[in-house]
Formats: sequence, structure tokens, C-alpha cells
Amino acid sequence: MNGKIWLIGLGPGHPECITPQALSAIAVSRIVIGQPEATRLVYTYLASKEVITSALSPVERSALATARATEGHQVGILSIGHPGIYAIASTLLAYLRRRRLKVEVEIIPGMTLADYAAARLGSPLGGDFAVISLADRASRWAAILNRAEKALEADLILVIYNPLGKLGQRRIKIIMDRARALRGATTPIGLLTGAATPSEEIVVTTLEWLELDDIKVDTLVIVGDSKTRLYGKKMVALRPYSSRLGY
Amino acid sequence: MNGKIWLIGLGPGHPECITPQALSAIAVSRIVIGQPEATRLVYTYLASKEVITSALSPVERSALATARATEGHQVGILSIGHPGIYAIASTLLAYLRRRRLKVEVEIIPGMTLADYAAARLGSPLGGDFAVISLADRASRWAAILNRAEKALEADLILVIYNPLGKLGQRRIKIIMDRARALRGATTPIGLLTGAATPSEEIVVTTLEWLELDDIKVDTLVIVGDSKTRLYGKKMVALRPYSSRLGY
Repeated sequence: MNGKIWLIGLGPGHPECITPQALSAIAVSRIVIGQPEATRLVYTYLASKEVITSALSPVERSALATARATEGHQVGILSIGHPGIYAIASTLLAYLRRRRLKVEVEIIPGMTLADYAAARLGSPLGGDFAVISLADRASRWAAILNRAEKALEADLILVIYNPLGKLGQRRIKIIMDRARALRGATTPIGLLTGAATPSEEIVVTTLEWLELDDIKVDTLVIVGDSKTRLYGKKMVALRPYSSRLGY
Repeated sequence: MNGKIWLIGLGPGHPECITPQALSAIAVSRIVIGQPEATRLVYTYLASKEVITSALSPVERSALATARATEGHQVGILSIGHPGIYAIASTLLAYLRRRRLKVEVEIIPGMTLADYAAARLGSPLGGDFAVISLADRASRWAAILNRAEKALEADLILVIYNPLGKLGQRRIKIIMDRARALRGATTPIGLLTGAATPSEEIVVTTLEWLELDDIKVDTLVIVGDSKTRLYGKKMVALRPYSSRLGY
């Protein structure tokens, strides 16, 4: 059997959100690479496999998986969430592309954090939306801020991953100030912190009542658009459809 | 037991992408409402349940589910994909909100089409992205086009659901022309048609080589950003991280 790399998305971290497809990919993998929170989630499926959980950067994980796959092994790299959304897929494919290596790669999708948070916060993604990450190592801050501002100007619902990164509140504060200015203080905003953990917390409020300290490093932020309303503790992105059309 | 509505996301249409959580919600539901493609997908789990598959609009499905839940039943509404992303969740919550009805609602997330397509096309969502729908009943065309243009100007990867709607190619052609002008003819673009069906088709090309006829009513379109490249038949959204940081 030729070697192959499986990038396996496990979803938000609840066992009941793991797909049969992901478990099949794990079953096929002889070697499994993943951070401890990922391998812990599926440890019962890892017996008799070589499991590597040491702290490796995405490039190091890609290099290791490539080396083992090139030897002919089936190698699985586990991701919480979806491997292709703020995770390892681009790193691995860029690694292979840069070196012109031909290794078979299959990506097993999982629910990304925005999918999970959307379901917990009501229906905040009921319209068009933009997704950005404030992770510090990403593009220059000017580019990130420009994307956030354009999304706010375009009346897109705005999803923000990694709101603190390693620089703390500075960036998210600027974006929240822009949101208040461009979209209005009464705009609903939802925060999901500690997704799929026992300490998971949900905050649904409006921009004027937002407490910046409620945004933690593992918070997913969703800023509503101009048609988003609150109902109880839920965000409802009203759809611009005509109700006489049945929508 | 009080009544409750479960909005159950089944993912793209492959049985192996259905989560245990979704199956649990189906198991609990006494009444299951869904379009034929959804009920067909899980028919083995529907024995002894009241199953309603007649052609109903989202508002009609919401009204029916609300009526039955108010009688005390556990009612499941099935969605292909994710109930909160271009699906029924906002319709139902808006329905309840408008009438000030208090019904317990739980949303079970599933993989949305963009998650599935991203995994099939390589790593096209490796950076910040925007998601829009060209469905005809949505907001005024001017608003949709404005969102698409702002996304293109902001160098966001652009995901397009429902590219044809009922008006055909007119709208998507305009957006593709804008993309060529604002982003460049060599920008990679990926099309996934017939997701999770035996006739699933993938096209990965560049804007200048795009054949508009390859975009069908059930195509999911992903337009790369300025850092998206091709590798073989895969889209790779290069991450702006510094490789010396290990990303």
C-alpha cells in the first residue's frame, strides 16, 4: 500500500460530534499525530498505533507526516475542528508544494468552531457572513483590520476566531469600537468560550453592553448584521426573505 | 415531557458524515419533518416515527413543528448541512419571536456545504473568508453584489452558495467578472457540484479559464484570495505566517 496522509477533523471536542468518516480514517492510520487534546478525545481508537503527541509546530507535523508517508505508511494528523479552517491543511499542502513532493493527501472535514458556536447561540449565521482570525502570526494587522472594516461596511455578519492571540485585548478592542461605530451599539453579539468543555460559557448581548473581559483566548465571537435581533438568550439573524414567499 | 423542537443538521449527504449527536436527536424525536433527500438519508432511524416529507416552505415547517411541540411532542426538523447556515434555523426562531412563543429549541450542528467542499478542493479556506448566497429570494441584488465586491476588495476568500438560484447565470457572471477585475485572472477558483452524490464533480481552475457553464444550481463556488495557489488539482490558500515561526 502506498503511503498517504489523512488530515482528520474531529469537530469541536465532543465525542458525539465525531463523524464515522473521521473514525474510519483513524482506523486506517498506522501512525497518528496530534496535540494532546485531540488524541485524548479519541484515545480508545488509538490502541496499537504509533501515536505522536509531542509539541510540534504545524510545519514540523507536516514534515514528520510526509517523511512517514513517503516510507509507505498511512499517517493521520488529528485536528480539533476542521483541518482546512485555521488549522493544518494549508501548512501541509504548502509544504508539499514548495518541495514539489507528490504525497496522497485526503482531508476529512469536521465541524469548525463557527458551526458549533452558531448552533449554541441561536441562528446568528442566518445570512451572509465573514470569518476572520486575529491570531498574531497572521497577516499584518492593517490587513486584518481592513478585512474586518470591509465586512462591517458590507453588512456581513462577522465571525472572529482567536480574538486575543498573544497580544491580548488591543486588537479585538479596536474591532469592537469599529463595530459600534459602523454597525450600531444595539447590534447583537455572541460569545462562545471553552467550546465543548465542561466550562463552556455563552454570552449573548449587544455591542453597548459588551464587557471586553468576557472575550477570552478561546472565545469565538459573532457580531450580528443589521438584521440580527435577540430573542431570549438567542441571536436571530432575520432573513431578508419575504414571509409571504414562505421564507 | 415538555415539547421541544430539534433542528438536526445531517451534513452534506454522506451517511458517514452524520454525527452521533444528530442520530440521538432523531432517536428522541417522535415526529420528524424533512425534505425527501434528508429523510431518505436516515430512513433506517425513522421506523415507528411520524414522518412528514410533503413539500412545505420553511415557514410552514416551522408552524407545523411549533404546533406539534406545543402539544408536548419532541419534533425533529432535518436539514442537509447545518440548520443555521442558509437553512431553517433563522426562519423558525423568527417565527417564534414574531409570535412571542416560548418553545424549547435545540440546534444540532452539521457540516455545512462549505466545510465539505473545502476538504474536497484542497485547502481553499486556509485564510479569512466570506460566505454569500445568490439565492434569488435573498436581499436585493445590490446588497449581495456590494457584499461580494467588499469581500473581493478586502482580499477575503469568497465562498458562494446557490450561484444560480432561479435567475440563471446572470448574477454569478457579474460576480465572476468583478472577481477577474478586482483579484486577477490567474486567481484560483474551485467548484464542487453535486456534493455527496454519485455524480459529484470537482473543477479547480483559474478565473481566466473558468467555464461559466460548469457552475450549476447545486455548485458551491470558492474564489481564492491573493495568496491562493494551485498544486496539482488542489487549491492551497497560502498562509501569511512566517515559515520560520513553524507555521
